[in-house]
Amino acid sequence: MLEQYNCLIAQSGGPTAAINASLAGIISRALYYHTNGAKINRIYGSLHGIQGVLSETLIDLTDIFLSEPEKIETLKYSPSMYLGSCRYKLPDYTTESSDYTEICNILQKYQIKYFFYIGGNDSMDTVAKLSGYIKHICMDVKVIGIPKTIDNDLACTDHTPGFGSAAKYIATSLLEIAHDTSIYDLKSVVIAEIMGRNAGWLTAASALARNSYNTAPHLIYLPECPFSEQDFLSEVSKQLEQRNHVIIAVSEGIKDNNGNYISAKGSKKDKFGHVMLCGTGRVLEELVSEHFSCKVRSIELNVLQRSASHIASLTDINESFILGEQGVEQAISGKSGVMITSIRTSNFPYRIEYSVSSIDTIANLEKKVPRKWIHENGTDITEEFLEYLRPLILGEVPLHYKDGLPMYLSLKHI
Amino acid sequence: MLEQYNCLIAQSGGPTAAINASLAGIISRALYYHTNGAKINRIYGSLHGIQGVLSETLIDLTDIFLSEPEKIETLKYSPSMYLGSCRYKLPDYTTESSDYTEICNILQKYQIKYFFYIGGNDSMDTVAKLSGYIKHICMDVKVIGIPKTIDNDLACTDHTPGFGSAAKYIATSLLEIAHDTSIYDLKSVVIAEIMGRNAGWLTAASALARNSYNTAPHLIYLPECPFSEQDFLSEVSKQLEQRNHVIIAVSEGIKDNNGNYISAKGSKKDKFGHVMLCGTGRVLEELVSEHFSCKVRSIELNVLQRSASHIASLTDINESFILGEQGVEQAISGKSGVMITSIRTSNFPYRIEYSVSSIDTIANLEKKVPRKWIHENGTDITEEFLEYLRPLILGEVPLHYKDGLPMYLSLKHI
Repeated sequence: MLEQYNCLIAQSGGPTAAINASLAGIISRALYYHTNGAKINRIYGSLHGIQGVLSETLIDLTDIFLSEPEKIETLKYSPSMYLGSCRYKLPDYTTESSDYTEICNILQKYQIKYFFYIGGNDSMDTVAKLSGYIKHICMDVKVIGIPKTIDNDLACTDHTPGFGSAAKYIATSLLEIAHDTSIYDLKSVVIAEIMGRNAGWLTAASALARNSYNTAPHLIYLPECPFSEQDFLSEVSKQLEQRNHVIIAVSEGIKDNNGNYISAKGSKKDKFGHVMLCGTGRVLEELVSEHFSCKVRSIELNVLQRSASHIASLTDINESFILGEQGVEQAISGKSGVMITSIRTSNFPYRIEYSVSSIDTIANLEKKVPRKWIHENGTDITEEFLEYLRPLILGEVPLHYKDGLPMYLSLKHI
Repeated sequence: MLEQYNCLIAQSGGPTAAINASLAGIISRALYYHTNGAKINRIYGSLHGIQGVLSETLIDLTDIFLSEPEKIETLKYSPSMYLGSCRYKLPDYTTESSDYTEICNILQKYQIKYFFYIGGNDSMDTVAKLSGYIKHICMDVKVIGIPKTIDNDLACTDHTPGFGSAAKYIATSLLEIAHDTSIYDLKSVVIAEIMGRNAGWLTAASALARNSYNTAPHLIYLPECPFSEQDFLSEVSKQLEQRNHVIIAVSEGIKDNNGNYISAKGSKKDKFGHVMLCGTGRVLEELVSEHFSCKVRSIELNVLQRSASHIASLTDINESFILGEQGVEQAISGKSGVMITSIRTSNFPYRIEYSVSSIDTIANLEKKVPRKWIHENGTDITEEFLEYLRPLILGEVPLHYKDGLPMYLSLKHI
């Protein structure tokens, strides 16, 4: 009789339009091994990330997706996290090991051989710590990290799942905002506030809105460059001399020369110690109002930039699915304590290969926009950066609609 | 030799995803008469509504669309106003007639026989006054109003072009917000602020987000019912007892028992004397924060709800196109001082017929949500209202994409 193993999947961190595509990829590949060769027996999902393991709220996904395989396709195109999420930070196991003991008891109880954790920076911290502990106690569980974050700030990978879809939403919205703004024969300034705490990848993606008739956004401010109110007002003034409608893309996380957030609410912190931002666009709106007599509006591209699956990038969704499949392959081949990575081998035509990186070289690092990809005066991005961005938003998802709305998959009743 | 006439088209008021579809319908039908029988010779567009007539900034659209007919299709699916807009209120011609003299001089100079004005309440005021003056001076120009407003508040028509697309964007966004919100195992309240100064049609459309797994929005507040902070807090408290995630849809224009806007910035007024709103969601967010210890977020569905053509309703776009075509037919048949209207002759199956109403019965009136379509306690809408709404968001637009972004048409460089 062949030896049989179970696998466990969890999702963690903030939502993206692509994190369920990676889950679908894992389930799809695990079901293949379930059906052919029995290298995987049951496929468990933990509800609310690592917290679900600690509280033993696991569900058996095997039959759900085996009996209705078309659900894998619907899951692939569904926003946010099918299994729920958490923002739970594991302690250092050398000083506080009780969480680890509990997790390993559950893994043993459910005969888990492969543990897949889909998430961003903080989730890779969980993967690093847990895989370290498991190695330390010589337990035979392979722990694999699958990247995910709209922020595109994970090290060792060309780009992150979820980023391309968020970028497509942002660029499309900026283009539609440009159409909306340009109709009146009056001077106006519109400020679009885009997510990105410390890295400006998403805000830069707004430049993809430019086409044969649209030059907006006319100014782009990333957190990588210190923000000066005086320089900002001078740039806005120059722009208003050149055109009626000035459209500005600004990252929520821009800071002044002393490293203080421009945002008015820069003092609240989340569980990971990150400063929670809100209101950068509003602050700049007030600033422009005070200095110019034109119409001013700020628009916060809120949570829809991470959840608008109806305008997801097909390239992003397909790559995220493959990253999930690759996770299963790597786990079965014996890898642990690694994250699946994407390597761009060519830009014309665009080609991606998949690999792995040791989780220790990734966890808790933030990849920022290289300074050479930002114009010297800090108000625009370079052509080289645009060439990097362009392939990531290509393709539209083949969504099904019911009663005029996209058909998504949800495990829970909302 | 057949007598030849020219026509003039202008757009006015706030943007919608469907106002260019009506423009495309007018151009398409006018080109038919241009080519067959020569009842229309040149097709002019006025830039920035009635202001463009006053400033004689007219462009000849005939050859632009005759030489590239596929542009009509692209225009049909493009957001905002191809010809630009204005918010110019004509004075009463009995006391101040200089604007009217100027307009009529231009109409005469360009041999305009048919004038089509696409817009909402304020634009229909322009149609009423101008057609009244033209009748008064016995000039032979047919003035036709084509309805447009995301607000759905025009009298004498079943619904307005642009409303269905905005409703589809709002319902889709609410569904995606519900997915986004529900991932954490924590209590939370999300407040989505939706456009609608005095009528709650758009906010009500958020209820279309409900499906087999989603019951959000859990509370809906329309401007038609006076808003009580105490009742609101009591309803939120009840909801938080029943579920982890409470999602609330609120109109920007809700008012207290004394008619004062809940919005913090309720004191600025626009040119038509309308109070400009901003911040209702933020006010409620603060209120919930003060009284409950859960996570709270407010989301303003900003200008994208009127400009997101990428998720427009095909039903809305097709009907808007037909309204434009009908405008041409009615003008040629000799009608003037009328607005083209939609009459719902059946709901199962959904059927619309087109007619006209005298502009005097429409201008400056606001159609509100009937009280019988709102639950007694003012926090939800009825099934009858949902039956009215459902057909309006059906169908997806066959957009073309280039470089990952929707292909739209723009006359001006932005």
